[in-house]
Amino acid sequence: MTTAPEATTYRLIDGKQTAEAIKEEIAAEVQALKAAGHKVPHLAAVLVGHDGGSETYVRNKVLACERVGFESTLIRYEDDITEAELLARVEALNQDTRIDGFIVQLPLPRHISAEKVIEAIRPEKDVDGFHPMNIGRMVAGLPALLPATPSGIVELLRRYELPTDGKHCVIIGRSNIVGTPVSILLAKNLDPGNCTVTLCHSHTQNLAEISRTADILVAALGRPEFVRADMVKPGAVVIDVGTTRVEDATKKSGYALKGDVCFEEVAPLTSYITPVPGGVGPMTIAMLLQNTLKAAKGEVYAR
Amino acid sequence: MTTAPEATTYRLIDGKQTAEAIKEEIAAEVQALKAAGHKVPHLAAVLVGHDGGSETYVRNKVLACERVGFESTLIRYEDDITEAELLARVEALNQDTRIDGFIVQLPLPRHISAEKVIEAIRPEKDVDGFHPMNIGRMVAGLPALLPATPSGIVELLRRYELPTDGKHCVIIGRSNIVGTPVSILLAKNLDPGNCTVTLCHSHTQNLAEISRTADILVAALGRPEFVRADMVKPGAVVIDVGTTRVEDATKKSGYALKGDVCFEEVAPLTSYITPVPGGVGPMTIAMLLQNTLKAAKGEVYAR
Repeated sequence: MTTAPEATTYRLIDGKQTAEAIKEEIAAEVQALKAAGHKVPHLAAVLVGHDGGSETYVRNKVLACERVGFESTLIRYEDDITEAELLARVEALNQDTRIDGFIVQLPLPRHISAEKVIEAIRPEKDVDGFHPMNIGRMVAGLPALLPATPSGIVELLRRYELPTDGKHCVIIGRSNIVGTPVSILLAKNLDPGNCTVTLCHSHTQNLAEISRTADILVAALGRPEFVRADMVKPGAVVIDVGTTRVEDATKKSGYALKGDVCFEEVAPLTSYITPVPGGVGPMTIAMLLQNTLKAAKGEVYAR
Repeated sequence: MTTAPEATTYRLIDGKQTAEAIKEEIAAEVQALKAAGHKVPHLAAVLVGHDGGSETYVRNKVLACERVGFESTLIRYEDDITEAELLARVEALNQDTRIDGFIVQLPLPRHISAEKVIEAIRPEKDVDGFHPMNIGRMVAGLPALLPATPSGIVELLRRYELPTDGKHCVIIGRSNIVGTPVSILLAKNLDPGNCTVTLCHSHTQNLAEISRTADILVAALGRPEFVRADMVKPGAVVIDVGTTRVEDATKKSGYALKGDVCFEEVAPLTSYITPVPGGVGPMTIAMLLQNTLKAAKGEVYAR
């Protein structure tokens, strides 16, 4: 049974604009906190080594803090820092009452266990939402600092008022950072949520057949332009989480960012689609800021 | 597209026998620990009030401990115990080096927060596997004390050598105790695992259509005989997690245990099916014992 794909007029889900709107809301809250005599939220970022991508991500996070009126602190280490030294710094940040939340930018050098470092962060200050305590609370439907990219996806669905209840959501990719948590969130009895969720991955058979049944398709596998027209049901909502750097001589930087979806082919079939760049990406930092605000206000964990 | 259901010769997945085999393995390990001069594992169970079901469950857990050579301690409270008193007892058990693991039998009286009590348990001693720390580690694929019923299902698939890799597993029911964690476990890159997993629930549309695509169908919604023949693909493996007490005048006890699957109708269609009782149920206690052994040996969390 095949339905002839029909060209529809699709709409872009503008993550950049949405992230800007969220940042403005946060900035207004910061002003209100200040006006009420409270301290402003303070995010610290720990960066180990000189990975180009990490440098960029951390710089953007610090800039975003300034933008919304947060205080921010950047803590840098060379990549020969020992695990014990890094763990000691994490503990110091846990104890530091001036810091509301902090992140340790991943990846870390191979001699340092990322798991150990993440578990050393107090869940109350884990604004990346990577600590098992926050993930476990998310699974149980308890208050938690949610991982930024999955909650950014949920926030896009919310702000675009896209119906999710009873819809079939197919997720391609089962990473700990995106695919798995977003599959958990969208199946919950929440709004957005209440999707029937299918989680697909490299061992999935008949992937195209399954993804063609999706009302909402989330591509989060990290393979540029993997999702083609034959994998998408006409009228579907497509969320593209991929951001792979691909060499591109026509760009000044020498590379272009490619999503996991072949946009030209797929977009005309969809009702809504996120572009890359400018879709899910900008939401991640916005949700990090929102987590920091929540941590500063003590909204998630009782003090 | 419908395939005419064909009667096949199905095989029972015997959870009772499998649980007995696991208990014998544990008993042998306990003997070996003893012979090597180590203390035997010690499980404590806290029971609040006089709920009939809870009394039975806890009694069976204590008996199972004796059976495998564990020490066990039953701690009883009337249902007017305060939350603070219960939390103090949990903390005492956390500190008690004689106790390797303990459970607080649910449900608790309404004036006590089950979440607060569960989070008060040290994850290292949380042999029910309900603590967010253990759930979060499970999601991240890190060592964890896994919740007993989901890991009992995985263990049945393992011991019956039923292929899971690339199979489509449909789970009906998204509870925190069974449906959601088993959906997470079976999608992971593990063996058993690597299933394409669809999680269905009360908001799912076209449920029968979806469940008919399942190679492995897990019914965990708690509605007796909900799964009928038209919901099952011929040759499927069916795991029935339901155990609802239904009045039955022909039984001495006055009730019968009913699964979520209409066995008479569905069994002939399947390749393998768990009966109720005697399927998933007995595995739950076996996995609790296995968690206690792991906790005693310090296998999951470094000390």
